[in-house]
Amino acid sequence: MELLKKKILEVGRVEGDGILKVDSFLNHQLDVELLNEIGKEFYRLFKDYNITKILTAEVSGIAIAAITAQYFKVPVVFAKKTQSKNLDKDTYEGEVYSYTKDITYKIRVSKRYLDKKDNILIVDDFLANGQALLGLKQIIDSANCNLKGVGIVIEKGFQKGGKLIRDKGINVKSLAIIEEMKDGNIIFK
Amino acid sequence: MELLKKKILEVGRVEGDGILKVDSFLNHQLDVELLNEIGKEFYRLFKDYNITKILTAEVSGIAIAAITAQYFKVPVVFAKKTQSKNLDKDTYEGEVYSYTKDITYKIRVSKRYLDKKDNILIVDDFLANGQALLGLKQIIDSANCNLKGVGIVIEKGFQKGGKLIRDKGINVKSLAIIEEMKDGNIIFK
Repeated sequence: MELLKKKILEVGRVEGDGILKVDSFLNHQLDVELLNEIGKEFYRLFKDYNITKILTAEVSGIAIAAITAQYFKVPVVFAKKTQSKNLDKDTYEGEVYSYTKDITYKIRVSKRYLDKKDNILIVDDFLANGQALLGLKQIIDSANCNLKGVGIVIEKGFQKGGKLIRDKGINVKSLAIIEEMKDGNIIFK
Repeated sequence: MELLKKKILEVGRVEGDGILKVDSFLNHQLDVELLNEIGKEFYRLFKDYNITKILTAEVSGIAIAAITAQYFKVPVVFAKKTQSKNLDKDTYEGEVYSYTKDITYKIRVSKRYLDKKDNILIVDDFLANGQALLGLKQIIDSANCNLKGVGIVIEKGFQKGGKLIRDKGINVKSLAIIEEMKDGNIIFK
């Protein structure tokens, strides 16, 4: 998606350890006009899959999911990282391993909001190690619903998540795939 | 807002200790069509304030803020609860006291994304004790920008936050104010 790549080149900041900061438009400040273009592109890519629900994980996926859902005219469900009084006790759970923090945490979706008839599109801001996607897939599998596709805004092609997820036969589409980040430069695949 | 009140009466669930669960449409599963009506209503209420940015706090405010921002054609900034590698070190901070957990936590916004010329609209899902709003106001005051209004989806009128915030001269508009929740019944003001 050219508009997105242009934005990444213009305002993305490469920092140490393969970190790409896009907090000016994607995960702290939100460029809602760009999110709309992203939503339209996800709709173009997945409109033939009879999607009935969009699933993401808190926090960074939520705005992307909500804006995208307008094009599909379906609800969003976001998996929660913390067990709060507002979450039902009866949940589907997924485990997510964090490489940066070297801990495994749980994400949860109330059983009320996933049905075995649901055709799910997952959306998220980044695909790097793929661990968040594995946690969401675990939730979808526990609910016996159908994972129809995964829409990613930025894939770090130099990390192993993309291969890991595609090798499981999952239909992943990334709007921008970064092949390399070197000396502050971003090279797309 | 009649459509919202109707939805709360239809699917909201009253649980012990003044808890109103609206996770079927507002903060776990998201009814994006209703969020659009909420966004339009916030626009109607605040369109004359020359809003340049919408501010909220993660997690539950994000989807409401993103959908609402489409009507104002301005960016969203959401305050973060955790200090992550993706957040700048140079931040404005606010403190939020949680009554349920009896702890005070910090919320942060990168200094890059608030300017003293900004006219801010805060949006959030609930107003109960008002502590999250105080934390956001602290951030706005530190950045020397202008708080023009606060848009709340559901205010718990039987808790003290509404008075606390209005007594500070802040322009708060709540789309549904609950006066009482008794024996599972919801009574609006």
